[in-house]
Amino acid sequence: MNRALTVSASVLDAWNSLPSDVRSALVALEMRRNKEEDKGSSTASFTSDTSESDGGSGTEKTDRSLEVIERDEARGTTTVLKPLERAPNNVFEFSKTLKQESTTVEKTSATLVTTKKTIITRTRGWRNVFSLPISYDVDIIPYGTILEPTNPQLLEATGSHPEGYNRRFAVIDEAIARIHGDKIVAYFKAQGIELTTCILPGGESDKRPEAVDRLLDELCAYKLRRREPFLAIGGGVILDIAGMAACLYRRGVPFVRVPTTLLAIVDASVGVKNGVDYCCDLTNDTYKNRVGSFYAPSSCLLDSSFIQSQDERNICNGFGEILKLALVRSVDLFELLETHGKALVDSRFAPNSSVPEEVATRIIDLSIQIMLEELGPNLWEHKLERCVDYGHTFSKLLEMVPGADIMHGEAVNVDGFFCCVISFLRGYIPRETVDRVFKCMKSIGLPTNSADLDSELAWQSCKDAVEHRHGEQRIPLITDIGESICVSDITPEELDRALEVMKEFPH
Amino acid sequence: MNRALTVSASVLDAWNSLPSDVRSALVALEMRRNKEEDKGSSTASFTSDTSESDGGSGTEKTDRSLEVIERDEARGTTTVLKPLERAPNNVFEFSKTLKQESTTVEKTSATLVTTKKTIITRTRGWRNVFSLPISYDVDIIPYGTILEPTNPQLLEATGSHPEGYNRRFAVIDEAIARIHGDKIVAYFKAQGIELTTCILPGGESDKRPEAVDRLLDELCAYKLRRREPFLAIGGGVILDIAGMAACLYRRGVPFVRVPTTLLAIVDASVGVKNGVDYCCDLTNDTYKNRVGSFYAPSSCLLDSSFIQSQDERNICNGFGEILKLALVRSVDLFELLETHGKALVDSRFAPNSSVPEEVATRIIDLSIQIMLEELGPNLWEHKLERCVDYGHTFSKLLEMVPGADIMHGEAVNVDGFFCCVISFLRGYIPRETVDRVFKCMKSIGLPTNSADLDSELAWQSCKDAVEHRHGEQRIPLITDIGESICVSDITPEELDRALEVMKEFPH
Repeated sequence: MNRALTVSASVLDAWNSLPSDVRSALVALEMRRNKEEDKGSSTASFTSDTSESDGGSGTEKTDRSLEVIERDEARGTTTVLKPLERAPNNVFEFSKTLKQESTTVEKTSATLVTTKKTIITRTRGWRNVFSLPISYDVDIIPYGTILEPTNPQLLEATGSHPEGYNRRFAVIDEAIARIHGDKIVAYFKAQGIELTTCILPGGESDKRPEAVDRLLDELCAYKLRRREPFLAIGGGVILDIAGMAACLYRRGVPFVRVPTTLLAIVDASVGVKNGVDYCCDLTNDTYKNRVGSFYAPSSCLLDSSFIQSQDERNICNGFGEILKLALVRSVDLFELLETHGKALVDSRFAPNSSVPEEVATRIIDLSIQIMLEELGPNLWEHKLERCVDYGHTFSKLLEMVPGADIMHGEAVNVDGFFCCVISFLRGYIPRETVDRVFKCMKSIGLPTNSADLDSELAWQSCKDAVEHRHGEQRIPLITDIGESICVSDITPEELDRALEVMKEFPH
Repeated sequence: MNRALTVSASVLDAWNSLPSDVRSALVALEMRRNKEEDKGSSTASFTSDTSESDGGSGTEKTDRSLEVIERDEARGTTTVLKPLERAPNNVFEFSKTLKQESTTVEKTSATLVTTKKTIITRTRGWRNVFSLPISYDVDIIPYGTILEPTNPQLLEATGSHPEGYNRRFAVIDEAIARIHGDKIVAYFKAQGIELTTCILPGGESDKRPEAVDRLLDELCAYKLRRREPFLAIGGGVILDIAGMAACLYRRGVPFVRVPTTLLAIVDASVGVKNGVDYCCDLTNDTYKNRVGSFYAPSSCLLDSSFIQSQDERNICNGFGEILKLALVRSVDLFELLETHGKALVDSRFAPNSSVPEEVATRIIDLSIQIMLEELGPNLWEHKLERCVDYGHTFSKLLEMVPGADIMHGEAVNVDGFFCCVISFLRGYIPRETVDRVFKCMKSIGLPTNSADLDSELAWQSCKDAVEHRHGEQRIPLITDIGESICVSDITPEELDRALEVMKEFPH
């Protein structure tokens, strides 16, 4: 809605000249107004006069003490809100009137009797209004320096502590501990700090509640304080497990993300989501990311030199999410991938390779920037139509097929290509675009199809989407490279036709 | 800081005349400023001129595009923030300069060599700034009507759904299901809705992660949609389990609290905390509320007729929290308890009893209002000094003593009385006040001491407080009935003296 922060100097001066309590009051008022607008059903309008509004839904101020009247025509409620003296920005006493009308028609021998009943319910109570401030930095660390004792950034990220508080806690990906474990401990030792580590396996199948419990146990034993940030160093699975444990231990402690895979650098590190796959004892099914939370890290430190320790398949896996972002939001990024994708997989983002350093940097920068622009204003997903969900409709079930050997980014890519075919069949994109996307995917070494992607899985995925995206499919499709929309009318027949077309592309 | 929303009509008119994007920009600016102020170490000041600030910590705007420079003298960082075009209120590109100075003194044979080293680290990255809006109503339901099919409030609370969406989910306290289970199901049946229930035991010892898992399983099997509120009907334990499951299932689904005990009505129903006791496999200890989260309900419905089904001990238990609120915040509430406490325990808050109806109402109202006033501006506990933590320092360990037969409100009361004695020994309150508090507690039937409260438990509690309240005890003590402060300098010797004085009061 607000695409630019354009405030003239005179307005800014006027604003700064207001006493801070007046500024706070106006901010509180504006936030209430925004909240009402978000609800959609009731519109909000604060005015400074005392007249009654002329019907319709709305909110109005009746006197100088900022008492607010709120009307919701759809639900038939009128609420009068009055701020409490000791918490005037947060707590409001209210009285609510609910008016409900019901009409019953009864048929006796020869006549119809229509009864109209109006029920008026009056209640009172309190409204608690709060705005939780979230802020975290995603820091790009100079290549390969994060574990250099001369670089204070990693230490800085673990917070300010009293002199002599010389311990820290880190949960570390098994794969990273093998390669960098000693260096991580040595980094802190050089500062006189003893690092306690919890090493967890970071494979897709390790993303389970048991791992969160294990970490919680270690945090209890370490007696982590409430405002003492711990480190999470690893791939997406470790970052998710750490985020969930950080959210739950003492109802929330700070944690610092240090992603060590390409996928985690552009994906898991940037947002506020965490989660584990959950096996339900009642249905005996395992559900992808069914249990987790929204919880912000205190900061993220990205050093892309960690990518060096990944094998080719894992790097391709990361490109799955990058390509997704290119498809829905950036033709520039897509072109960079077309030209340099293959070479970057080979060089593992190393400097001094055949790929110019600024290209590697630009690809990671653009990916993170797009993610942040898309996630930033919608961090808690109040809007369920999200273009970054591209490739995340059919992939969930593909990943959960028992014994399936498919990684997250790979599954996202298969899903993303399938959606391209659906777009093509709908006439959103020409065949040449499908071919171009296919070629780019293949050049990077990403799978575009899976034996598990069949009629049943595809339709079940749409049904799951309806459940998860509350009542509608809301499936993002591209209308061009870099442009997307969300649709909710995909049919089983359409999926079957798309599956047929998929066969035209070599596995 | 802002005790009243006093905005003159002319300011309000001027505000309303601004375009909405300008208002949003000012709100964003103000929130960043507040955030900076909260950090404490760096002060923030946006100005509309382009001059450099005159040293010191601070934030300034350098040009009309609202680029912001932030200085933190304590940490030696300067950060230049620029809003991203597509998410200008939420995402900022930054470049950060960290300047660190270290001095080393080396002693050679006869001379001292002092080396001063300055390390400048330059980094870049992004800052994600978000403000999560929270809002929920605490509705007082007319006495005894919540399950009357003519009262639409319970149904209304479960959200608006498409025509024909005729199912709901409720987790119900075993004790309540026994008495009201059929009536709850019938209420929904009368509206053509099928209620799926999950019945869980609600005793203190049932507040365990296993109960959360059980509820998550049931939610999976029911396939609860993402924006479909479920009901939680029961005492504090059930509300906590429900809140934690609601936070975690699909990373958060809405839930409605219907507290059924006096304690839950004035305590668990009002805030946003949930949690379970956690048994650590590594230490083999169980920690009170060690695992949980901050997660707001979509609403709370309070019908105090549920209290009728509680026995005397459980009602006294509720008075433990009410008395605590009176001690730290309200002499009015304390006097009501002195006069009517005993009679209210006997009448179980029933109307038409010896206690005037408005007294019962006023006690519950005052309790909730005080809770909301204290919690409201500090919902996520960014401030760790909270007077509502009164009685919650020593009670945690008292509750966790294996085999201890003490309820939460009882433990809070023992703790609260112990703290009165500490206040007395410090000269904060006269002996008469201790006696008056003792008399009031006894009249309500609350315990004021416990055989488990010994020297060791008391000092361990203080050490645990340091861990949980990050580095300081921050223990609330009263300075009069209705007035409190937080202290962090309690010593083991002081605790021992207080334990001696405790013996002067009959058990």
